[in-house]
Amino acid sequence: MSTSAQNQPPLMAHAIRALAMDGVQQANSGHPGAPMGMAEMAQALWTRHLRHNPQQPLWADRDRFVLSNGHGSMLIYALLNLTGYALSLDELKNFRQLHSLTPGHPEVDVTPGVETTTGPLGQGITNAVGMALAEKLMAAEFNRDGHTIVDHHTYVFMGDGCLMEGISHEACALAGAWKLNKLVALYDDNGISIDGQVAPWFIDNTPQRFEAYGWNVIGPVDGHNADAVDAAIAQAKLSTEKPTLIVCKTSIGKGSPNRAGTAKAHGEPLGAEEIKLTREALGWSAEPFVIPEDIRAAWDCTAQGAADQAEWDARFAAYTAAFPELAAEFTRRMAGELPANFAEVAVEAVGSAHDKAETVASRKASQIALEVFTAALPELLGGSADLTGSNLTNTKSTPNLRFDLAGDVVKNDAGVGGRHINYGVREFGMAAIMNGVALHGGFIPYGGTFLTFSDYSRNAIRMAALMKRRVIHVFTHDSIGLGEDGPTHQSVEHAASLRLIPNLDVWRPADTTETAVAWTMALANKHRPTALLLSRQNLPYAPKEDADVITKGGYVLSEPVNVGLKKKAQAVIIATGSEVQLALQAQAELAKAKIAVRVVSMPSTTVFDRQDLGYKLEVLPKGLPRIAIEAGVTDGWWKYGCAAVIGLDRYGESAPAGVLFKLFGFTVDNLALTVRKVLGK
Amino acid sequence: MSTSAQNQPPLMAHAIRALAMDGVQQANSGHPGAPMGMAEMAQALWTRHLRHNPQQPLWADRDRFVLSNGHGSMLIYALLNLTGYALSLDELKNFRQLHSLTPGHPEVDVTPGVETTTGPLGQGITNAVGMALAEKLMAAEFNRDGHTIVDHHTYVFMGDGCLMEGISHEACALAGAWKLNKLVALYDDNGISIDGQVAPWFIDNTPQRFEAYGWNVIGPVDGHNADAVDAAIAQAKLSTEKPTLIVCKTSIGKGSPNRAGTAKAHGEPLGAEEIKLTREALGWSAEPFVIPEDIRAAWDCTAQGAADQAEWDARFAAYTAAFPELAAEFTRRMAGELPANFAEVAVEAVGSAHDKAETVASRKASQIALEVFTAALPELLGGSADLTGSNLTNTKSTPNLRFDLAGDVVKNDAGVGGRHINYGVREFGMAAIMNGVALHGGFIPYGGTFLTFSDYSRNAIRMAALMKRRVIHVFTHDSIGLGEDGPTHQSVEHAASLRLIPNLDVWRPADTTETAVAWTMALANKHRPTALLLSRQNLPYAPKEDADVITKGGYVLSEPVNVGLKKKAQAVIIATGSEVQLALQAQAELAKAKIAVRVVSMPSTTVFDRQDLGYKLEVLPKGLPRIAIEAGVTDGWWKYGCAAVIGLDRYGESAPAGVLFKLFGFTVDNLALTVRKVLGK
Repeated sequence: MSTSAQNQPPLMAHAIRALAMDGVQQANSGHPGAPMGMAEMAQALWTRHLRHNPQQPLWADRDRFVLSNGHGSMLIYALLNLTGYALSLDELKNFRQLHSLTPGHPEVDVTPGVETTTGPLGQGITNAVGMALAEKLMAAEFNRDGHTIVDHHTYVFMGDGCLMEGISHEACALAGAWKLNKLVALYDDNGISIDGQVAPWFIDNTPQRFEAYGWNVIGPVDGHNADAVDAAIAQAKLSTEKPTLIVCKTSIGKGSPNRAGTAKAHGEPLGAEEIKLTREALGWSAEPFVIPEDIRAAWDCTAQGAADQAEWDARFAAYTAAFPELAAEFTRRMAGELPANFAEVAVEAVGSAHDKAETVASRKASQIALEVFTAALPELLGGSADLTGSNLTNTKSTPNLRFDLAGDVVKNDAGVGGRHINYGVREFGMAAIMNGVALHGGFIPYGGTFLTFSDYSRNAIRMAALMKRRVIHVFTHDSIGLGEDGPTHQSVEHAASLRLIPNLDVWRPADTTETAVAWTMALANKHRPTALLLSRQNLPYAPKEDADVITKGGYVLSEPVNVGLKKKAQAVIIATGSEVQLALQAQAELAKAKIAVRVVSMPSTTVFDRQDLGYKLEVLPKGLPRIAIEAGVTDGWWKYGCAAVIGLDRYGESAPAGVLFKLFGFTVDNLALTVRKVLGK
Repeated sequence: MSTSAQNQPPLMAHAIRALAMDGVQQANSGHPGAPMGMAEMAQALWTRHLRHNPQQPLWADRDRFVLSNGHGSMLIYALLNLTGYALSLDELKNFRQLHSLTPGHPEVDVTPGVETTTGPLGQGITNAVGMALAEKLMAAEFNRDGHTIVDHHTYVFMGDGCLMEGISHEACALAGAWKLNKLVALYDDNGISIDGQVAPWFIDNTPQRFEAYGWNVIGPVDGHNADAVDAAIAQAKLSTEKPTLIVCKTSIGKGSPNRAGTAKAHGEPLGAEEIKLTREALGWSAEPFVIPEDIRAAWDCTAQGAADQAEWDARFAAYTAAFPELAAEFTRRMAGELPANFAEVAVEAVGSAHDKAETVASRKASQIALEVFTAALPELLGGSADLTGSNLTNTKSTPNLRFDLAGDVVKNDAGVGGRHINYGVREFGMAAIMNGVALHGGFIPYGGTFLTFSDYSRNAIRMAALMKRRVIHVFTHDSIGLGEDGPTHQSVEHAASLRLIPNLDVWRPADTTETAVAWTMALANKHRPTALLLSRQNLPYAPKEDADVITKGGYVLSEPVNVGLKKKAQAVIIATGSEVQLALQAQAELAKAKIAVRVVSMPSTTVFDRQDLGYKLEVLPKGLPRIAIEAGVTDGWWKYGCAAVIGLDRYGESAPAGVLFKLFGFTVDNLALTVRKVLGK
C-alpha cells in the first residue's frame, strides 16, 4: 500500500529529526534536542503557511522566518534542504565545518534562506520585531488601494532561553505597543534549559506575561501535533491588532528513547547507539542523510513558492504600471541603494557645515546633518531610547511614529507616516530591532542613547557588525563632558571599547563638518554599522581647507604654518572630538615658544586604519614624535606609536564639565607641557 | 493653633519637594520631577516602616533601600538629611559639585545611607533582588531557634524606565522564582518618561506582568496619600512567599503648577519663577534649604533608629552568648574579611595545581581551584547563567540553591543550604544581582557564562568596578578555541575590551597554577571585581619554578636557558592563556636556530600594569624587541611597545578549534617566523 508522505505527517517531521541527529553526530558537535523537539512545529509552518520561494530566497515579499533559538540550527538547515533551497545534503554532512554553508549557528548571507544570524539568545525574536515593524511601515508607505505589494508575516521560533533574556521583554513589549499583528511567535515550551528542568529558575506564567504586553496568546497546543500547530497559526493570522504567541508544548529531543525530555538532549550528539534506538522508535529506516523520495516530495515547496512569487510578480507589475515611480523607489529601497542624488545631498550637508562654521555640540551638528539627510532619504528611520531631546535624533522630516487604535500607522496631512521611533528606555531592544529593520530591508535605521549605555546594547551592535548591516548608533554625551550626571553616565572606556568591535566604524567628530562627513560615511557604509560618538557640550569649529580628507578617518588639520611658524613640525598631536580644540590651542601656545607642532584630527581610527600605508605615513611621518589626547582610556592610542597619551584611565566625577576637564588634565597647558616633555624642551 | 508636623503629612512631604527643587535649581542641573512625585511614598516608607539607624548607616540588620530611578537622587539626599544622617544642608547646597557628598546620581561609599550606586536604569531593582536574596540566605544560614539576627526588608523605588529595561524582567522573574517575600518594590507610576507620556511606547499591564512572575501585587494606590502607601507597605510585609509590587499612582513634579505631570518636570530645574509658584501652591513658606524645626523633628529618625539597633544589639549579644563561633563568623562575613586561614588555603590550591601539573582546560582548572576555595570559604556563592556544566562553576561544596513551597531555602542533611545558583539565561540579571549580593554583604558572589556574553552584562560589570565591589565573573570559552559554535559565540574583542574597564581585574590564565593564583587574587581583591577568562579546550601545564610571581600579573615564564641556550634573550614573546603553549614551543623551535627568546606569561595585564616600573623593566627589558600573541584583537598589546602582535582582528568561523587556530595563524611556525622577521633572521 502506498500513501503519499503528505498523509504521513510523522514521517515528514521525522525527516528533520533524522537529519538533525545525523548532522550533529557527523560533526560530533551541536544541538540535536531543539530541532527534534520542534519538528512538527516546523512542518506545520513551513509546508502549510510560510510564503517563501526556495529558488528566490530574497524575494521582497516573502514571509520572514527567524530561529531565535539559533543553536537548533540543524532545524533550519534541514528545512532549507527539504523544501528546496540551494543547500545540499553534502552541506548538511559538513555541518559546523570550516566554510561550509552550515555553520554552528545560522548566519545570514552564508546560507540561502537564513534571514538573520542567531545564537545570542533573545536577539532573534527582537530582530523579528524589527522585521515585522519594517513590514508594517513599508506597507503603510508603499501599498495603494487595490495594489498591495507589501503583505507578509514574520514567524519566530523561540525557546525558554529567549524568554528568560531581558531583551525579550523590551522587544515583546514594543511589539504589543506597535500592534504588530503580522508577527507570530511560536514558543517551544519544553520546560528544559541547559541546567535542567527550568522550574526552579523559570516560573513565569508566559501567556499571562504576553497578555500583559497586549499580545494575542494561543495555546498551549500540542507541539507534536502538526495539525494543532497548523490550526493555531491559521488563527494567529486572523489577528488584526495584536502580535500572536503560540505556546507549543513539546519534548526536547522528541523521538530519542533515552534523552527526550532531558537537558542531555540539548547540546551534544546522541551517540551511535541512541541514534539507532531513535531510528527504531521513530520507524525511520533510511540511512543517515538519506531522505526517501516521497518524503522529500511532500516537503518540496519549490512549485508552491514559484507560484506564490509569480502571483506577487504579477501584482508588482500592475503596481509598476500604475505607479512607476513608487515601484522604482520600492525596488531601490529594498535593494538598499542610496538615492541617485546622495552625493549631492552629502555635499550640501558637509558644505553647509563648512560654510557656516558654527560652534555647536556635535550632537547638535548631528541633528543639523540629519535635517538634510532625512529630508532627502525617506529610508532613514530614526529613534531614541527615551532621550530624543538629548540625542537630537529627530528632525522636521521625521515625525514620531504612532499607531492608531486599529494598529495602523498614523500619517500626517501630507500622507507621511512617522519616521522617528520612541523606543522607550530599551537600549538593547532598540539596537536589535534596528538590526531586524536593516535585515528586512527598505530602511536605514538609526537610534540614539547616551554613549555609556552602549554597554546595554553592545552585543546587538556586535551582531550588526558580524552581519554586515547598515545600522547607525547615535551615541551622545560622549565623555566626562556630560558633566553633573556623574560617573554612572560618563563614558570613559566606551570609545576605545567600541573601536575593538570588528567591522564597526566608530566616529568621534570634532565639529560640524566632521560630523556631516561621519554621517555621510555611515550612510554610504552599506555593509557596516557605524557608531557616532557625539558631545553634549559645544565644540568650536575647527578651521580647515578641505573637508573631503575627513573621509580618510584621520588627517592633517593644522600645520605649524597655520600658527605662523615656517619650520616643519617637530611633533604631532593626535586628537579626537572635543579634544581637537585643545590640540589647536596647544599648537598656538607652543608656537609662541617656536615649537612647531602638527595637529592631526582623527575622528575615526577604524577608517584611518584601513587607509594605505603611504597615506598613514603622510599623516604620521616616521620619526616625528606623536602625542595623543582623548578624554577616555589610553590603551587604544599606543598602536600609533605615541610617545605620550593624555587620557583618563579612571572613572569621572559628578561636577560641571569644565571643572572635570581641568581636574583630569584636559587643558591646553597640560597638553603643551606634555609635548615639551616629549621633545625635551 | 499649633499641631505637630506629624499631623501635617503634606508638609513633611513638601520638605522633600522644596529641597529637591531648590537643590536642582542651585546646581542648575538635575531631576526635580521624580523626588517631587515620590515625596509621600518616601515619607510613608522612611518614617513609618524603614528600620534604619541614621547614626549607624552600616548596621548589619538594617532594612535596605534602593532608589532604582537614581536620577531622583535629591529624594534620597533630602531623606538622609531629614531623617538624621550625616549629610548636612551644605552638602545639599553643593548638589552635583565636585567631591560633594551629593553627586548627580547616588553613589555608595560616597554618601552615608546610600546602599548602591544607581542611575543606569533597571540595575537598582536588580541589585535589590540580590540584596533580598542575600538576606534570605544569611537568615537561613545564621538564624537559630529563638535567635533571629537576620531579618530585614529590602525596599525599592522604581519608575517606568526601570520597568521598560530588559534587566527588570530577568531580575523580577528570579525574585518570583526565589520567593523573596521581604522584597518590596514601590512603582512610581507617573505615566511619563523623558520622551513624554509613555502610552505610545509603554502599554504593559505591569500588575499582570508581575503576577506572571509570581509576585504579590498591591494597588494601584494613590501615591500622594502617605496613609494609603503606608497601608500598602504594611500589607506587603505580611507576604510570606512572594515579593510585593506596590503600584503608586503619582504625578511627576507634583506641586509644580505648570510642570507637574509633564516630561518637562523630569530633567531640568524648574526655574526661579516656577519655584516661586510651587512654593505658593504648596503653602511652603520657608526659604530655600530651610526646614522648619517642627517638620525636621517629625522626620527625625535618630531616636527610633537608635532604639531599633539597640534592640538588635541585645539580640545579637544573646546570640553571641549562645553561639559564639557563629556570631564571630557572622561578623567576619558581614565585614567581608576572608577566613584567617585563607593564605593557607590559597597555598594549598596553588601548590596542588603546581604539584599535579595537569593538562586540563582552564575552565576545569578553575573548578579544581574552586573545589578547594568553596570548601574553605562558606561565603562563596556561585552560579551560572544556564551553563553550569560548561562554566564548571559548581563544586562538591556548592549544592544548587533551591527553595521549598513555603519559600524557605532547602538544606541538605548536613543543614547546609544551596550555594550554587541556576540564574537561568539571564547574564545581565546575574551580574547585577551579584552586585546586590556583594553590596548586602555576607557573600562573595561568582557567576559564569561564555565570555562573549559578557557583552550582555557589561554595564553591571562596570558598575561593580565603579562601586569597588568584589564580584567574580567566570567567563569560559574564551576565544576561537570555542570552536564549532561559530562567530556568534567566539570571543574576539572581549578580553581587550574588559581590560579597558577601570578597576576591573582581568585574568586569562595559561594553566592550572595561573588559574589558582587568579582565583586567589580575585578573592583577596576586596575592592575590585575580577573577570576570569577561561578556555574551553585543554591547556598543557606550563612548567615553572615559582608560582608566587604569577601574582604580579606578568612574569618571566621561560628563559633561553630552559631550551638549552646559554646566551641572553634576543627577544621577548608575551603570551596569555591558550597561546602560552605556542610561545613555549616557538621558543624551543627558535632555539634550534640558536635564536634566544624569553617567554613572558601575562595572565593579567591589569595587575601587571600596577607593578612598579622596576619590575616591569625586569620582565620587559628596554631594547629587547617584544612580540605579543593572543587569540583576540591586537589593539591592546601595542602599549607594551611590541614590534609585532599576532592576533585576530576579525570574527572567527564555525569549525573545530584546531582548524581555526591554524587558519588564523596561531601556530608555532607563524610565531617563530614572526620573531625571526622582527629580528631580521
